[in-house]
Amino acid sequence: MATVGVDLGGTKVMAAVVHHGKPHHPGKVPTPTDGPEAVVEAIATLIEETAAANDVEVTHVGIGAPGKVDREAGVLAHAPNLVGFGQPVALADMVAARLGGDVHVRLDNDVSVAALGEGTHGAAAGSADLLAVWVGTGVGGGLILGGDLRRGDSGGAGEIGHTTVWPEGRVCGCGGIGHLEAYAGRAALEAEARRRHAAGEPSALVDLAGEERMKSKIFAEALDAGDQVATRLLDDAVQALGLSIASVVTVVDIDLVVIGGGLGGRLGDPFVARVERVVQEKVFGNRPVRLVTSTLLDYAGVVGAAELF
Amino acid sequence: MATVGVDLGGTKVMAAVVHHGKPHHPGKVPTPTDGPEAVVEAIATLIEETAAANDVEVTHVGIGAPGKVDREAGVLAHAPNLVGFGQPVALADMVAARLGGDVHVRLDNDVSVAALGEGTHGAAAGSADLLAVWVGTGVGGGLILGGDLRRGDSGGAGEIGHTTVWPEGRVCGCGGIGHLEAYAGRAALEAEARRRHAAGEPSALVDLAGEERMKSKIFAEALDAGDQVATRLLDDAVQALGLSIASVVTVVDIDLVVIGGGLGGRLGDPFVARVERVVQEKVFGNRPVRLVTSTLLDYAGVVGAAELF
Repeated sequence: MATVGVDLGGTKVMAAVVHHGKPHHPGKVPTPTDGPEAVVEAIATLIEETAAANDVEVTHVGIGAPGKVDREAGVLAHAPNLVGFGQPVALADMVAARLGGDVHVRLDNDVSVAALGEGTHGAAAGSADLLAVWVGTGVGGGLILGGDLRRGDSGGAGEIGHTTVWPEGRVCGCGGIGHLEAYAGRAALEAEARRRHAAGEPSALVDLAGEERMKSKIFAEALDAGDQVATRLLDDAVQALGLSIASVVTVVDIDLVVIGGGLGGRLGDPFVARVERVVQEKVFGNRPVRLVTSTLLDYAGVVGAAELF
Repeated sequence: MATVGVDLGGTKVMAAVVHHGKPHHPGKVPTPTDGPEAVVEAIATLIEETAAANDVEVTHVGIGAPGKVDREAGVLAHAPNLVGFGQPVALADMVAARLGGDVHVRLDNDVSVAALGEGTHGAAAGSADLLAVWVGTGVGGGLILGGDLRRGDSGGAGEIGHTTVWPEGRVCGCGGIGHLEAYAGRAALEAEARRRHAAGEPSALVDLAGEERMKSKIFAEALDAGDQVATRLLDDAVQALGLSIASVVTVVDIDLVVIGGGLGGRLGDPFVARVERVVQEKVFGNRPVRLVTSTLLDYAGVVGAAELF
C-alpha cells in the first residue's frame, strides 16, 4: 500500500512514491504535447517506474495539474498551458483505468497542491494558516486556512497572480490590467525585457537567452551581473509582490507566506527577504508577517499531491 | 433569559434585546466622550432600559466595538475613534460588573459583528461565505468563511479599507498610501471635497455642510443635484471599491458581498449596483459575484452582537 504524488506541469511531469512527506525514487519526463492520452500514458509509466524502484504496490495517486480542476469529478476542466486540453479531460478516471482500476486517483490544482505540500512537510509545516505564492511562468497562489486548503465558492481560490496591483498598469496575459502576474511572472518579465530590448535598451537577458525561452536561471545570472533592465524589472516585481501580498495578508490576516515556483525558488532567500520588507512596510496594523522560501522546491507538488488523501 | 446586542460606535451607542435576529425595543444615545466609565454606564443603562421595555431578564450581552479587540479577554485594545480609549479597556468585565455580575458579556470588532448579523439574519442569511464591506466614516470589512467569522492570526482580519488600490495615490488616515479608505471613506471624501473647494472647485457638498460634518445624507443630496465634485469623488470611490473587492474575491473566492455602513446604506442599491459592475469586470475567471445592500442597516451591529453567543 503506497501513495504516489504526481506533478503535471506545462513543461514536465514528475512522480514519486511519497512516504511521510518524502519523495522516494522520483522520475520525470517532458510533458507530452500530443494530447490527453499521451499525458495519461506518461503519468502511468512514471507511476509504474517509481513503484518498481520502491518495490511497492500503489493504491493511491494524487495529481496536481495546472488550471481549473473539478475536484469531485477528477476532471481537469481548463488547462491553457497543456497542449490538447482545451476540453475538460477526466484525468483521474483515465489514469485509474490505465493502471488497472484498483487505484484511487485524486486531482487538484497544482499550486493548491504545492501549498498543501509546504503546509504539511515544507517551509510552513505545522502552520494552520498559510499563503503560498508560486512565482513561475505565471504567478499562482494557494491559501490554507485553519489547516484546510481553501477552495472557494467557484473552486478557484488563491489566484493572487490576477489581483490588481496597478489599475492603469501593464496588460496581463489574461487580458486584465495591472495584475501581479504582469509584473512578476517569468513569461511577462521575458516579454517586457524583449520589448525594452527591441526599443533600444540593451540587456544581458536577451543576449543570454537568444531566441530561446528566458529561463529563471538567466534572470539570476543577469541580476548577478548587474544588468540594468533585469534589475529594474525585478525591482518592479518585488514591489508588486509586496503590495499584493500585503493586501491579502491585511484582509485574511495570515502571518506566514511561502514563496516558491521556478523563479521564486531560483532567486531564493535574498529575493524573498526583499519582498518581505515591502510586505512589512505595507501591511496594515503593525502585524508581523514572515515570508519564507519554499523548502520542497521542485518537489512541493509531488509531496502535496500525496497529501490529497 | 434574554440576549442583548450592543453596537458601540464612534458617534452613538445602540442596544436592543434580540430574539430570532430581530431587535426589540432598541434604544440609542450619543457615545459619551468622557472616558470608559461613562461609556460603560451608557451601555448598562441602555441594556436595563431595553430589558425593562421587553420585560425580560438579561443573561447574555454581546458588544460590537470599533477598533482592535482581544476577544478572549473581552478587552478593547485600541479604539482611536472613542475618546479616552487610548489604553486597553476591559470592557466586557466592566459591563458585567456594572450589571451585577451574573451576565455573560462578549466583545468583538464592530464590523466583524455586523458581518455576522448580515450573514445570519440579514442580506446574506444562510450563506456560508461572505465578505462584508462597511462604507462609513472609514471603510471596514468582515469575512465569514465556512459559516465562521474569520478573525485571523493577529485578530485583525477583514480590514479591506487598508488594502492598496493606487500604490502612488492618496494618503490614507492611517498614513498608508492609496488605501481603499482614502477613496471611499466618508471622512476621506469630506477632506478631499474641502481640499478641492479650497483650491477653487465650487461644490454643493461644502455649501450644504458648511462647517459641520459632511454627513452621508449630504453626499446623497449633492449627487442627486448633479454636483460635479461629488460625482467625480463617488466615481473614484466606486472604482476603488470595485478594484479592491475584486482582488479579495479573486483570492478568497467568495460569491456574495454585502455593502453596508452609513454611506453605503444611504447611497443604497444604485451605488451597490455600480460597484458590482466594476467587481464583475475586474474579477478573475468569469466567476459570478453578487453584491447586495445590507438589509439590517443600522441594526446589523446589534443583531450581530447578539449572535456572539
